[in-house]
Amino acid sequence: MGETVSHAWVLKRRPSGRMTRDDFDWVESRLPEPADGQVLVRTIYLSLDPTNRIWASSQDQYMPPVELGEIMRGGTLGVVEASANAGFEKGDIVQGMWGWQSHCLVDGGAGLTKMAVPPGTPLDALMSVLGATGMTAYFGLLDIGKPQAGETVVVSAAAGAVGQIVGQIAKLKGCRVVGTAGSDDKCAHLVNDLGFDAAINYKTADLDAELAKACPDGIDVYFENTGGPVTDAVLKLVNLNARIPLCGLIAHYNEGDNTEGVQGPKNYQMILMKRVTVQGFIIIDYFPRFAEGIKEMAGWLAAGKIKYDTDIVDGLENAAEAVNRLFDGANTGKLLVRCSAEP
Amino acid sequence: MGETVSHAWVLKRRPSGRMTRDDFDWVESRLPEPADGQVLVRTIYLSLDPTNRIWASSQDQYMPPVELGEIMRGGTLGVVEASANAGFEKGDIVQGMWGWQSHCLVDGGAGLTKMAVPPGTPLDALMSVLGATGMTAYFGLLDIGKPQAGETVVVSAAAGAVGQIVGQIAKLKGCRVVGTAGSDDKCAHLVNDLGFDAAINYKTADLDAELAKACPDGIDVYFENTGGPVTDAVLKLVNLNARIPLCGLIAHYNEGDNTEGVQGPKNYQMILMKRVTVQGFIIIDYFPRFAEGIKEMAGWLAAGKIKYDTDIVDGLENAAEAVNRLFDGANTGKLLVRCSAEP
Repeated sequence: MGETVSHAWVLKRRPSGRMTRDDFDWVESRLPEPADGQVLVRTIYLSLDPTNRIWASSQDQYMPPVELGEIMRGGTLGVVEASANAGFEKGDIVQGMWGWQSHCLVDGGAGLTKMAVPPGTPLDALMSVLGATGMTAYFGLLDIGKPQAGETVVVSAAAGAVGQIVGQIAKLKGCRVVGTAGSDDKCAHLVNDLGFDAAINYKTADLDAELAKACPDGIDVYFENTGGPVTDAVLKLVNLNARIPLCGLIAHYNEGDNTEGVQGPKNYQMILMKRVTVQGFIIIDYFPRFAEGIKEMAGWLAAGKIKYDTDIVDGLENAAEAVNRLFDGANTGKLLVRCSAEP
Repeated sequence: MGETVSHAWVLKRRPSGRMTRDDFDWVESRLPEPADGQVLVRTIYLSLDPTNRIWASSQDQYMPPVELGEIMRGGTLGVVEASANAGFEKGDIVQGMWGWQSHCLVDGGAGLTKMAVPPGTPLDALMSVLGATGMTAYFGLLDIGKPQAGETVVVSAAAGAVGQIVGQIAKLKGCRVVGTAGSDDKCAHLVNDLGFDAAINYKTADLDAELAKACPDGIDVYFENTGGPVTDAVLKLVNLNARIPLCGLIAHYNEGDNTEGVQGPKNYQMILMKRVTVQGFIIIDYFPRFAEGIKEMAGWLAAGKIKYDTDIVDGLENAAEAVNRLFDGANTGKLLVRCSAEP
C-alpha cells in the first residue's frame, strides 16, 4: 500500500482566551507501512471536549498538559487500515486517544481498544452516549449525585453531551429535572424532546427567580458542568445534604491562559449551612467500570428511553476552530469532527 | 428563696461587621420561684463561638436566626438553683442552650441535659474538648476527613477550640499535621506544646511557599475553619482524592451584615482536577453520636494524649465585646464567659 499521507494539529503555543488556528500548526507527514507489531489507524471521529482547553494550558491538571510541539490530545475512533500486529486486522473499529491526526501508526497497538459494535449502533454513539461523555453523565450522576425518586436535579450546560444524558437518566430515576442552557431553542429542545421538566436560558433569565420557580422543593442534586452565575444561583436553593458532582467549570476555561485559578462560587457558605457535598470527578477514574455503564445505557438506548444529539463538523482541518462551538454555545449534544467516512 | 435577679443580652439589631455592645440590650428581669415543673438554672459558663455571628444575622442558615428582641442564643452550662421538677434537683450540673443570660427558668426542664461529671473533670472541659467544639473536631476529622496514617492534614484556625483538637487527633492517627494561625506565639504553641509538625502564621507568611515547604507530600485532608487566603493556598497543594471537611468560614463572618453570601475559594478548579470532596457539616447532626465521641476523647484526655486551652472571660456583662476575641485573633482555645463561680 505504500506510504500514507497524514495530517495533524500540533500545539504551537498556549492559548489565551479562545483557542484559535494560530495556536496550532497544521502538519503533514508520511507514514510508512506498519512494521512488526504496528497498527495503522485511520481516524473516523475525533471527539472535541471542553477539557481540550485545559489540556492546551499549562495549569496543574489531571493529566500532563499537551506540550508545545506535540500533536493535540483527543479521544478518537477509527478503523484499522493495515496491521502487522496479531491483535488487530484491517477493518477493525478501534477507539483510543491518538489525538488530532488523520492517521496514526501505533506501536504494538498500545492504547487501542477494539470495539465490538452491536448491530444497528451508529459509530457516533460510541463516541457520545456510549462513550466518555455518556459514562461521565452515568457515573457522575448515579455514583456521586445519588438521585432519589422525587428529588430535584439541576444540571448546567444541559444541552451539552453530558448534560442532556444526565437529565434523562435523572428522569428515569423519578426525579424532577431542570436544566440550564444558553438559548431558547436549546431550552425548548430539552423540555419538548428530552423530557426535562423545565429549562432556563441562563443568558437571559432572572436566574434566582426562575430557578426558584422551577425548583419549588429546592435542589437535591446539582450536576455541575459550568461554574459561573448558574452555580451562584443554585447554591441559594440547595436542600439539606444536597450533592454536587463537579464535572466541569466550562464558564471559566477561556479565562486568560487558564492558569490563574478559578474563583469558587458565590454563596459558598450554603455548602456549610446545608451540609452539601461537592465532589470533583474525572471520567478516567471510572474506566474500570465502563462495561457496567455501557450495558445499562445501551439498554435504555435500545428501548428508546434515552436520546442523544451529535453535532458533527466535517474535516479535521476544521477542528481548531470547531472546538470553540463548545464555548460559544453553538453546539447541542456531542461535538465530533468527522475526519473520514464511516466504513 | 424569693425572686432572682437575672441579666440577659437581647439582640437589638443586626450587626454590621463586628458585633458590638450596641447591637444588644442589657436587660434585667426578676424571676419568680419555680412553678410546677420548672427548673431555675444559674449560668456558670457561656460558650462564645464564631457561629454566634451567623445566628445574629438574618442570612439563610442552619437554624432560625435569633430574632430581634430575643435573648442571644448560646451554649450554656450551669447549676440548678431550685427545682419544682422531679427530674432535677438543686446542685445538678446541666447543659443547654438557654443563651446569654445569667439565670433561666426552664419550663419542664426542656432542653436541659443533666451532666454526670467524672471526678477530676473541670467543668470547662465539658464546654470545650468534651463538648461541642471537641466533638466538632472529632467527627469532622474522623468521619469526613478520614485521615490515614502517613497522610498530611492541614487545619486552619489551628489554635482555636476546634483546630487544636483536630490537629492532635490527626497526630494520634499517625498523620503529618500542619496548622495555620494568626500569630507567631500561637504557632509556637501549636508546635511546642500541642505536637503539630509545623505551623504557619497566615498573617505574615508567604503562604504558598511556606505551605508547600510544610507539606512536601501535598495535602490529603484540609480541615476548613476559615476560608480566605489559607484555603486558596491549600487548594494548590491538594492530593488526589483529598477530603475537605467544611466546618466554618470565619474569615467571612464579619463581612457587612453577613447576608451577601461568601465567595468561594480561588483555585476551585483543583477540586475537579484532584477529585477532591468538600463536605459541609454542622455539629448538631452528630448529637446522636456524642456519647461515642466523648468516651474516646475522655480516654485520650485522661491519658494525657490530648491537651486543650480555654480562654475564659469573667462576667456575662462582657460577652458582647468578648465574642470578638474569636474574630480578632485574640483567643487561643475555647472562648468561654464565666458568668458565675463553679460550685
